[in-house]
Amino acid sequence: MTRTLHLNAFLMNTGHHEASWRLPESDPYAHVDLAHYVKLARIAERGTFDSLFLADGPQLWSNLAQRPAGALEPLTLLTALATATEHIGLIATASTSYNSPYNLARKFASLDIISGGRAGWNIVTTAGAEAARNFGLDAEPAHAERYARAAEFLDVALKLWDSWEDDAIVADKAAGVWGDDAKIHPARHQGTYFSVAGALNVPRSPQGYPLLVQAGSSEDGKAFAARYAEAVFTAQQTLADARSFYTDLKARAERAGRNPDHIKVLPGIVPVIGSTEAEARAAEQALEDHIVHEHGVARLENLLHLEPGTLDLDRELPADLPPESAIEGAKSRYTLVVELARRERLTVRRLIGRLGGGRGHLTFAGTPEQVADVIETWFTQGAADGFNIMPAVLPSGLETFVDQVVPILRFRGLFRTAYGPRRTLRGRYGLPRPANQYLSPAPTLV
Amino acid sequence: MTRTLHLNAFLMNTGHHEASWRLPESDPYAHVDLAHYVKLARIAERGTFDSLFLADGPQLWSNLAQRPAGALEPLTLLTALATATEHIGLIATASTSYNSPYNLARKFASLDIISGGRAGWNIVTTAGAEAARNFGLDAEPAHAERYARAAEFLDVALKLWDSWEDDAIVADKAAGVWGDDAKIHPARHQGTYFSVAGALNVPRSPQGYPLLVQAGSSEDGKAFAARYAEAVFTAQQTLADARSFYTDLKARAERAGRNPDHIKVLPGIVPVIGSTEAEARAAEQALEDHIVHEHGVARLENLLHLEPGTLDLDRELPADLPPESAIEGAKSRYTLVVELARRERLTVRRLIGRLGGGRGHLTFAGTPEQVADVIETWFTQGAADGFNIMPAVLPSGLETFVDQVVPILRFRGLFRTAYGPRRTLRGRYGLPRPANQYLSPAPTLV
Ligand SMILES: Cc1cc2nc3c(=O)[nH]c(=O)nc-3n(C[C@H](O)[C@H](O)[C@H](O)COP(=O)(O)O)c2cc1C
Ligand SMILES: Cc1cc2nc3c(=O)[nH]c(=O)nc-3n(C[C@H](O)[C@H](O)[C@H](O)COP(=O)(O)O)c2cc1C
Repeated sequence: MTRTLHLNAFLMNTGHHEASWRLPESDPYAHVDLAHYVKLARIAERGTFDSLFLADGPQLWSNLAQRPAGALEPLTLLTALATATEHIGLIATASTSYNSPYNLARKFASLDIISGGRAGWNIVTTAGAEAARNFGLDAEPAHAERYARAAEFLDVALKLWDSWEDDAIVADKAAGVWGDDAKIHPARHQGTYFSVAGALNVPRSPQGYPLLVQAGSSEDGKAFAARYAEAVFTAQQTLADARSFYTDLKARAERAGRNPDHIKVLPGIVPVIGSTEAEARAAEQALEDHIVHEHGVARLENLLHLEPGTLDLDRELPADLPPESAIEGAKSRYTLVVELARRERLTVRRLIGRLGGGRGHLTFAGTPEQVADVIETWFTQGAADGFNIMPAVLPSGLETFVDQVVPILRFRGLFRTAYGPRRTLRGRYGLPRPANQYLSPAPTLV
Repeated sequence: MTRTLHLNAFLMNTGHHEASWRLPESDPYAHVDLAHYVKLARIAERGTFDSLFLADGPQLWSNLAQRPAGALEPLTLLTALATATEHIGLIATASTSYNSPYNLARKFASLDIISGGRAGWNIVTTAGAEAARNFGLDAEPAHAERYARAAEFLDVALKLWDSWEDDAIVADKAAGVWGDDAKIHPARHQGTYFSVAGALNVPRSPQGYPLLVQAGSSEDGKAFAARYAEAVFTAQQTLADARSFYTDLKARAERAGRNPDHIKVLPGIVPVIGSTEAEARAAEQALEDHIVHEHGVARLENLLHLEPGTLDLDRELPADLPPESAIEGAKSRYTLVVELARRERLTVRRLIGRLGGGRGHLTFAGTPEQVADVIETWFTQGAADGFNIMPAVLPSGLETFVDQVVPILRFRGLFRTAYGPRRTLRGRYGLPRPANQYLSPAPTLV
């Protein structure tokens, strides 16, 4: 089989650009409007995307003034979208730091059943003290500790998802025997962070368990991804960086005894599309003109762990920033932003403009052909198995991508023209259904 | 306004009777089939029920052999049903002992938004050691401690649900001001069981917060209900008991400074309907004939906190059972079962037969008129504001109730003939939209 591109639609309010809500076309209440998301989901499904994705964090980002704040809880919203769509995968972010494995495993299994095998989990460890303080902690747990807890969380969740063998239900009405208790495997987990005795109270789901997605790119993040993740979202600014990330992650997966084809790497791209290059750039500029820079400065200081008031809009970043090893928050995003600013010698104002669209993801303004070219180049040159499409403005940016870029990708033979017979999310991504850890030899169904 | 009856459809797998899955008409996989629940929801909505309800516990009931085990997580399933229905309320059970307030408050607010104000929460403290052992505990927390945690959980959740004033979103595109941070109220809660600093990350929902429902009838349970609950599910075997429960709860609510009309009491009833009394009794007998009594004995020993092997199918309960005060599990159900057995001098076999349909709820076999009579009597004689309808077999039992009993209740002027203009679940139950605790004087919208 020829290698095919995978596309994920990263949905966010009125778009990924922080100023998108200010455009005349945007509905500032869209982020809590089911109809908005149903519309987006249907556009993405028309474009035969592999999946939809919702980011999340269990805290209110500090400032309401700057842009739409708050969001519907992703598992809830994606469950509602499951009934409004037929084919597309549904990837919800949930934190291993602020959930318990039993409840979360159950919810994902339920969504997988309800959606007919279309659930995915973006596994995050959640940076920041705000979230920690909503869950009884005084401060953010250390980075390494968050990832240690995440690994144990996955071990428990995987036990729970396998706790019913696929054929545990017997349904023998005449004998009065509904199920076979010998095919139930209680978790019996006693660890550092969790102890969970019982079996899950949902049968094994169509996919066995949700597609496991990960999105942290620090050392710990990559080690975690190599072990557990089947798809990886990542922010990459240059082809060279993306290639080395890609190569590194595949090699790590292989060293962990896995098939490197079974971990799909999806960098983010914020496409701003115009019928000419000039038109695309003008659209980008119009968005940048709507940025309120004071908000941007505060956010940047927060990301870089600087005191409020440190940064000057018309100067470059200070030279004496700490190394990534000193950062307990989002490590890889810190490094990406600092390197971007240094490489292009950006003032704080310009840096805020550059981050406004994609918060560190590749932003690209151009014609549909030019966007398709970037995608093809990264895909064929060992930098990506697909892309996380992050339209600057929604729904219009997704609509334009589906109507104008997708046909080019299809014409070039890079992307599917229709959903095939494999109905599950793993099927879309060309991944096998996982075997049950309690069975050997493990049967592998696709 | 004349007082009107409220009806809640308590959905459970193939029905409330433990042997219902064995009937020829029943699908033994129904409990994990969205289509089954969509069908039930639409029948209930055709019958202009106030709400749907799903029970839950975060554990696998021990034995798979006896009957369908496991269930879709209620918030997930009800979210899917929100998009398949228009009017009916959606009441999900969730435990205060095994959730964190921030996550749960967020999920209910999300469902309330997605459903247009139709969310309800059945607040339970979850009896049993099995659940505790899935959440890092060795044993069930003491009954009083579970209720103390429940009260603090509610205080935190209520702060979170009020943390956005209703008009916090400004949406001033020209000025670049999306929201008013002065209308956000962080929880700033530091208590015995929880500390939660921030505001919720969802705007205040259509109902303000979900309808608060409660279903424990012990002393602590009633005290909790009097303070927080707007609707109470209860199991009552006799009109006299139901009247004293009703009177007691209304008086408690009044003593707590509340309007007693704002706490609705809904006893459960398991109607087995036939076109003649004999036909109804035959249907009841057919169900009882499908009970596997060995399973029933084990369950009864568990509920009564007896060693396995203590009970004899053909004798009455032992005389020396401990008093309710010694029970740390489900106190009020314990007392109800013991009193039922003693009052009617039932053998264990007969007791299992009596509990098979409703696990302690009133079971009643009769014609549609007879069922309507019971409902009318309890409703008009101070024993109920409505009923929790628990069909022995699903979907057929719900269908029969809607097609044959609801028309009689409507004809008698006891029940609505169509959904009125009040679109929220609280509106259906005739309750006001709660004011925001951070505003005074509190405006009360309906
Ligand atoms: C596309 C993408 C989406 C992400 N979504 C989330 C998210 O929803 N919630 C979150 O807490 N972190 C999210 N992250 C951040 C990472 O999961 C991770 O928390 C962060 O990068 C810090 O991890 P690191 O220190 O390993 O880099 C996302 C990252 C990427 C690239
Ligand atoms: C109609 C009804 C439904 C109930 N549903 C649940 C449930 O879903 N989960 C649960 O843990 N307890 C449920 N209960 C039990 C009570 O909430 C409570 O846990 C139990 O009765 C013990 O409380 P008590 O000791 O105050 O009586 C239900 C009770 C009734 C009457």
